[in-house]
Amino acid sequence: MSVRVESDAFGEIEVPSDKYWGAQSQRSLGNFDIGDIKMPEPIVRAFGVLKQAAALANEDLGLLDAKLSKAIQQAASEVAAGKLTEHFPLVVYQTGSGTQSNMNANEVISNRAIEILGGVQGSKTPVHPNDHCNMSQSSNDTFPTVMHIAAVTEISKKLLPSLTNLRDAFEAKSQAFKDIIKIGRTHLQDATPLTLGQEFSGYVQQLTFGIARIEAVLPRLSLLAQGGTAVGTGLNTKIGFDVKVADEVSKLTGLPFKTAPNKFEALAAHDAFVEASGALNTLAVSLFKISNDIRYLGSGPRCGYGELSLPENEPGSSIMPGKVNPTQCEAMTMVCAQVMGNHTTITFAGASGQFELNVFKPVMASNLLSSVRLLGDACRSFRIHCVEGIIANEEKIAKVLHESLMLVTALNPKIGYDNASKVAKNAHKKGLTLKQSCLELNMLTEAEFDEWVRPENMIGPKD
Amino acid sequence: MSVRVESDAFGEIEVPSDKYWGAQSQRSLGNFDIGDIKMPEPIVRAFGVLKQAAALANEDLGLLDAKLSKAIQQAASEVAAGKLTEHFPLVVYQTGSGTQSNMNANEVISNRAIEILGGVQGSKTPVHPNDHCNMSQSSNDTFPTVMHIAAVTEISKKLLPSLTNLRDAFEAKSQAFKDIIKIGRTHLQDATPLTLGQEFSGYVQQLTFGIARIEAVLPRLSLLAQGGTAVGTGLNTKIGFDVKVADEVSKLTGLPFKTAPNKFEALAAHDAFVEASGALNTLAVSLFKISNDIRYLGSGPRCGYGELSLPENEPGSSIMPGKVNPTQCEAMTMVCAQVMGNHTTITFAGASGQFELNVFKPVMASNLLSSVRLLGDACRSFRIHCVEGIIANEEKIAKVLHESLMLVTALNPKIGYDNASKVAKNAHKKGLTLKQSCLELNMLTEAEFDEWVRPENMIGPKD
Amino acid sequence: MSVRVESDAFGEIEVPSDKYWGAQSQRSLGNFDIGDIKMPEPIVRAFGVLKQAAALANEDLGLLDAKLSKAIQQAASEVAAGKLTEHFPLVVYQTGSGTQSNMNANEVISNRAIEILGGVQGSKTPVHPNDHCNMSQSSNDTFPTVMHIAAVTEISKKLLPSLTNLRDAFEAKSQAFKDIIKIGRTHLQDATPLTLGQEFSGYVQQLTFGIARIEAVLPRLSLLAQGGTAVGTGLNTKIGFDVKVADEVSKLTGLPFKTAPNKFEALAAHDAFVEASGALNTLAVSLFKISNDIRYLGSGPRCGYGELSLPENEPGSSIMPGKVNPTQCEAMTMVCAQVMGNHTTITFAGASGQFELNVFKPVMASNLLSSVRLLGDACRSFRIHCVEGIIANEEKIAKVLHESLMLVTALNPKIGYDNASKVAKNAHKKGLTLKQSCLELNMLTEAEFDEWVRPENMIGPKD
Amino acid sequence: MSVRVESDAFGEIEVPSDKYWGAQSQRSLGNFDIGDIKMPEPIVRAFGVLKQAAALANEDLGLLDAKLSKAIQQAASEVAAGKLTEHFPLVVYQTGSGTQSNMNANEVISNRAIEILGGVQGSKTPVHPNDHCNMSQSSNDTFPTVMHIAAVTEISKKLLPSLTNLRDAFEAKSQAFKDIIKIGRTHLQDATPLTLGQEFSGYVQQLTFGIARIEAVLPRLSLLAQGGTAVGTGLNTKIGFDVKVADEVSKLTGLPFKTAPNKFEALAAHDAFVEASGALNTLAVSLFKISNDIRYLGSGPRCGYGELSLPENEPGSSIMPGKVNPTQCEAMTMVCAQVMGNHTTITFAGASGQFELNVFKPVMASNLLSSVRLLGDACRSFRIHCVEGIIANEEKIAKVLHESLMLVTALNPKIGYDNASKVAKNAHKKGLTLKQSCLELNMLTEAEFDEWVRPENMIGPKD
Repeated sequence: MSVRVESDAFGEIEVPSDKYWGAQSQRSLGNFDIGDIKMPEPIVRAFGVLKQAAALANEDLGLLDAKLSKAIQQAASEVAAGKLTEHFPLVVYQTGSGTQSNMNANEVISNRAIEILGGVQGSKTPVHPNDHCNMSQSSNDTFPTVMHIAAVTEISKKLLPSLTNLRDAFEAKSQAFKDIIKIGRTHLQDATPLTLGQEFSGYVQQLTFGIARIEAVLPRLSLLAQGGTAVGTGLNTKIGFDVKVADEVSKLTGLPFKTAPNKFEALAAHDAFVEASGALNTLAVSLFKISNDIRYLGSGPRCGYGELSLPENEPGSSIMPGKVNPTQCEAMTMVCAQVMGNHTTITFAGASGQFELNVFKPVMASNLLSSVRLLGDACRSFRIHCVEGIIANEEKIAKVLHESLMLVTALNPKIGYDNASKVAKNAHKKGLTLKQSCLELNMLTEAEFDEWVRPENMIGPKD
Repeated sequence: MSVRVESDAFGEIEVPSDKYWGAQSQRSLGNFDIGDIKMPEPIVRAFGVLKQAAALANEDLGLLDAKLSKAIQQAASEVAAGKLTEHFPLVVYQTGSGTQSNMNANEVISNRAIEILGGVQGSKTPVHPNDHCNMSQSSNDTFPTVMHIAAVTEISKKLLPSLTNLRDAFEAKSQAFKDIIKIGRTHLQDATPLTLGQEFSGYVQQLTFGIARIEAVLPRLSLLAQGGTAVGTGLNTKIGFDVKVADEVSKLTGLPFKTAPNKFEALAAHDAFVEASGALNTLAVSLFKISNDIRYLGSGPRCGYGELSLPENEPGSSIMPGKVNPTQCEAMTMVCAQVMGNHTTITFAGASGQFELNVFKPVMASNLLSSVRLLGDACRSFRIHCVEGIIANEEKIAKVLHESLMLVTALNPKIGYDNASKVAKNAHKKGLTLKQSCLELNMLTEAEFDEWVRPENMIGPKD
Repeated sequence: MSVRVESDAFGEIEVPSDKYWGAQSQRSLGNFDIGDIKMPEPIVRAFGVLKQAAALANEDLGLLDAKLSKAIQQAASEVAAGKLTEHFPLVVYQTGSGTQSNMNANEVISNRAIEILGGVQGSKTPVHPNDHCNMSQSSNDTFPTVMHIAAVTEISKKLLPSLTNLRDAFEAKSQAFKDIIKIGRTHLQDATPLTLGQEFSGYVQQLTFGIARIEAVLPRLSLLAQGGTAVGTGLNTKIGFDVKVADEVSKLTGLPFKTAPNKFEALAAHDAFVEASGALNTLAVSLFKISNDIRYLGSGPRCGYGELSLPENEPGSSIMPGKVNPTQCEAMTMVCAQVMGNHTTITFAGASGQFELNVFKPVMASNLLSSVRLLGDACRSFRIHCVEGIIANEEKIAKVLHESLMLVTALNPKIGYDNASKVAKNAHKKGLTLKQSCLELNMLTEAEFDEWVRPENMIGPKD
Repeated sequence: MSVRVESDAFGEIEVPSDKYWGAQSQRSLGNFDIGDIKMPEPIVRAFGVLKQAAALANEDLGLLDAKLSKAIQQAASEVAAGKLTEHFPLVVYQTGSGTQSNMNANEVISNRAIEILGGVQGSKTPVHPNDHCNMSQSSNDTFPTVMHIAAVTEISKKLLPSLTNLRDAFEAKSQAFKDIIKIGRTHLQDATPLTLGQEFSGYVQQLTFGIARIEAVLPRLSLLAQGGTAVGTGLNTKIGFDVKVADEVSKLTGLPFKTAPNKFEALAAHDAFVEASGALNTLAVSLFKISNDIRYLGSGPRCGYGELSLPENEPGSSIMPGKVNPTQCEAMTMVCAQVMGNHTTITFAGASGQFELNVFKPVMASNLLSSVRLLGDACRSFRIHCVEGIIANEEKIAKVLHESLMLVTALNPKIGYDNASKVAKNAHKKGLTLKQSCLELNMLTEAEFDEWVRPENMIGPKD
């Protein structure tokens, strides 16, 4: 492998010639041989956005030479566009401040900018990774800043559209199923009827609230730490740098970022990540319940509830021929379990900050972005490969509805709870229909029964 | 023990004569001998509020005789006031719908109303527990309704005031400490300085956000399931009952409750509880970090950080005489760990609903109300017995500040990062002060050092 | 309220005359007004055991006067027997070392011993709470000691018997159901058959392993910290005190306790509690799965799986007459969710110890003992009120079995997976029976079908 | 891209010509575009081991032609050796039974075996993926089998050696530090002294127990589901197949696997994974505590506890020159937080199995293997880059020890707890040394003080 020599405060070290990274990145590869999960790509891209914005702000404030600034901006924009991701080899389990990933960005951008300006890789001239690329910055404020840029971007551009589409797919099914009356189930036991459309409307409501919950955390997640530098004071920045950076990041991303009102909080705590993870955890809870209902309602084909038919996407069994399984529900519920676990990690990591810095930043970023990605992908997959193709088995639904004893509830206002109870228990004991039981017990006439016990009159309140 | 006979659909059963509860409550005591945690008192009181409101609404809609309604309202108001709590003996781990606690409320209120009207206990006349006290209701909608009433009431009337007071106490300390410059610590290592007031301002911001986070969940937590009855359809209610009940509950509590827009969601899922627990979990994360900082800053008295003195409230050790410990921080961090665990329970329970009903209602209610209570109490205790009495040890703070090597950061813009790094490492290696190291390495003059390295110029950005 | 004056290093304070507790307990009541969960009773009783054992050991080592020792032993034995529990009013969220509960024990025992010896309450003579009752001890070693005594005792004497009985009840059902062939379900979809006895044998195996898992943690849980005193060194004890105490505790409890091999670990970490909680968490996972299966298999009575009938213990609905619900499964699954949450609390608390002491002792004790109690009670309740009364609905089971398409799996070795797949899909599409589909597709003769597709030949491997 | 046509029960589909996978794998890529986490490599390798073993067993039982068996074994051994991992492209969030990864293995092995035998890729002759590679098997038993093979292998060959080495490194430090007396800290406050070696011996004990805990779960983790086929009955296997497979797997891996005593449990529940994850969770708790202690003891260099110097591995700050941070402790604590979160996922997934199958297999496998890998790597990294290079700052340690007031504890047996308390409080209040305070209060003579208060006499029990 062809190498060149790079250096940092610890001395010289060889790096591969075909990579832009420098000494500190290379050192990190040796010091942190822990797992194979790399710093998530949205973090890398967000570093590109941030370093561009910072160069602009520094130039604007008269701190950075225009020529250098332009070269840094060009290099950073390539990072933001995902063109240089292969030059970001570091893993998640490194320094808890993400210092080495910040230096990775500084090193890659400075070497690429040096290249643009015709200089020598690793020479740190004319573009120095610390003095220019990291100008007015510290890992302690850049890393939380890219955490927030990445999280808000992924949530806004991927998760929320995917979730909204899923909600809309359920809404369409709710409308399509609005006239199908079915047995309700509470405690898993037969209960009073409702329409299949009503049942699905509950799922729609869960997801509508889910969208609102995620949107509700965006204001706090859109606050950027940049400008706090090492401990939150903003030492070595000029007044106004923080606001300028937030404005430039907003322009570059098209999303409404603002500078954090208190930089001490923004470095030392990542409560906004814990909060956001809480919203994703709630969404996972909703999706788990919905997916679980759907796979049970689709259970069968002959020995289960069998009220729904789910799309058949693949062979279901390597031993049982012809079997088709609710695999999209399974993938979704596995994603939900993962999101709940990620939430525990984020909670524990978020609580464990100390004094002026929380040093669990990479693991919090990795877990939150994992949850966002998985939920976004799973919502899309679940919609396309399952929800949109759900079919109601109307015949089966009608059959079991009319066998239910819980239609007796319609008689409460007529014969009282205690008598209605006797009717139901008598029917259950003797295997009678409700009507047979009513007549046997002389509770009412057949005509009264037929008038009063009508599922279509049991699916809403009375005028 | 003196007893009387009560009955339900399962037959007769003896209950203690001096208690208002009836057959179903008594049966539950026998069937669920599981632990000793009772249904939380705020749930009992909320049943009082709800049954009052429901009687009013039923009377208003022409369904309930005015005399009975008045008696029910009087009895229910006694429950709401906490006067009859001893008549609610059931434990949390019972039916997952809370049916038995709803029946406990119906039985107590009916027997007390019967008493008010001069009837015979257990006769179910003239006030029947199901037909009158539970009129237009089902456990499936009453229990989620009281969950929400109780949660919003406890949060609004206890937790938020207590939390706000704590935030204000930190704000006062932040102001009082605004001129005390101290060493910053990142990665637990000496870093650039900040004021003690700035450090505390981070805590203030965390709690200010914490208040906002909790307030952000109240709109969804203030939606009431009442009117959904058994499966969400509202069978056996009159149109308008749901809105009337929500209005009456709002009047009785002085809090802005609304009827839920979708009753299917409101019975089958308790996502709003998972969401609210997520907000409490985030608050626990904040309080854990803050309490932990404070106990470390107060560590000593002679062999620790020693920057703060915490109030001495009790003897600290049964073997080490004169020891005083940060016990309020310990109680607070234990509460935080409890809240995080409660959140796991609530998450798991919330995800495990099935079809038209989530049957983990009592455990969700118990855990959320436990978190609310503990956080509210702990915020008050921590404020009174710790935060308000914190004293800064200014002498110690000043001494360590001036020993720090990280003041070198002020030299970055003067001599560059690499040279500054040499100065610091030389000082560390040889045990020199920064100034000595600078002079030894001929980096700058003594006058320059004295002008440039001044902590008071390092606590904010430059003009 | 009649009071007397007690005193400690902080001065004098009034306590109720009719209570044995002293100054430090009283002070704790004022300083920790947090929640209403008291230190668990098994901890109180374990203090009785420990203080008895310590007095014996101290007397034996020539440190404690025999007369005082006897009085302390008598008083402590009353605590161990639960006779003085009302004198232990402190809550869980107090000092993280449990110091105040240790002092509560010392104060109660000293005052009671003083009473026995005819002295004056609060005089600390002739029995001093620190100098005599706490002789050779520190809260830092007594509290972890009582944590272990209480946990091992409750697990051994309550949880394991209750769990073993439940396992045996399932074993009896597995035997009773050994000839009932039913449809298997994988992915919730119809699969190849098994016997109901085989299905239940899986539950038996889960619980058998569960017992083994809990027993496997007892060796580490049976190690006592006593003898470590303040930081683990054993300062102010005599050599051999630790072993003597462990021996006496073993005699008093009839359980095999040993002194911990390393007292530093025993004070600073409570990994054995985290491990034990992990075993309970695994048991909760098992019980959740089992209870969930049972309530689904019992779903109906007419519109669900309906293969099992569960005992009817109480009216199921306040609005739907005659409804009966799987309430014992619900209570059990709520307990499981609680245990999982308790595990999170214990994990987080266990990880947060610092230097020579973990100061989350009370919350760890409270949560572990809660899990033990709830699981023990729930296993008993579930057994008595549900499992022992489960009845198989043989008619329904047989009916759905013979409708299943997955019996086709028996044909794999005869006609190959791909052909068998065609048969099943054809049957599903056209609503045929398997035999009809086979014949229509000319896959085999009717005789071959009848010979090869026999559920009773599908429930085990072939010779 | 060059393609060929493969087919399954759903029809034909194009796959890349240069890959061995077939129709079902290809279909899965389209149906599960969810995240980018692939099925872990140890699972792929374990499939190689299993398919080899199964071919041998089938051949042995006279079911599989020797020529086909040899070809399958050769192909499978290449998978086991990691030579074909690029042919396993599927992600974790797929079918919950892992069916598609089982088919991926069958397809790759059949195509590679066909190649070995000179056949045509995708022809399924002479080696059929289902009929031969999956002979006597079902995804439902193969996937849990490879889960166990992979987990036991990774734990035995990677985690345990790495953990043992770390324990030994701590043991060496404990010995090296055995004569360094230092202040103890409880509640973060100064306490009685101990040696640094004693402090480290606590860590050694935690890790020794940690090894025992992990070893204790291996017996249950070494039980293989193979032989249960679709639902646990062993349909379509011959008696003895299960035992033969377990024996062959043991031979191939050199690890003591056994066939599971109950196959119904082995398919429907993965309690052994939950249990194993509990052991890893406990280890994470231990490592979190230890790493946290070490970074606090190394805090400084001038403004913290400063008792230890940790190795300097890289520049610590992009803004603060010369800063060195405890980055290995940070990576380790992040790993611990991840393991705790993975445990939540595994717990939730483990509890959510249904009837004859748990369909959270891939997510359970992925999370457990992630925990094993991360802990193993982090233990090695932490040992090499941190623990082995820890140096005690003896000067600083001695200085703070002698300033401590808690040496007063040595006077308890001499002047009693109450008097000793007065001495300490007086010293604290007036800033005196202990000796000065004793003399001022006339508690004892200077000679007595010098004789009685000697740290070297305070680090163990007395004879």
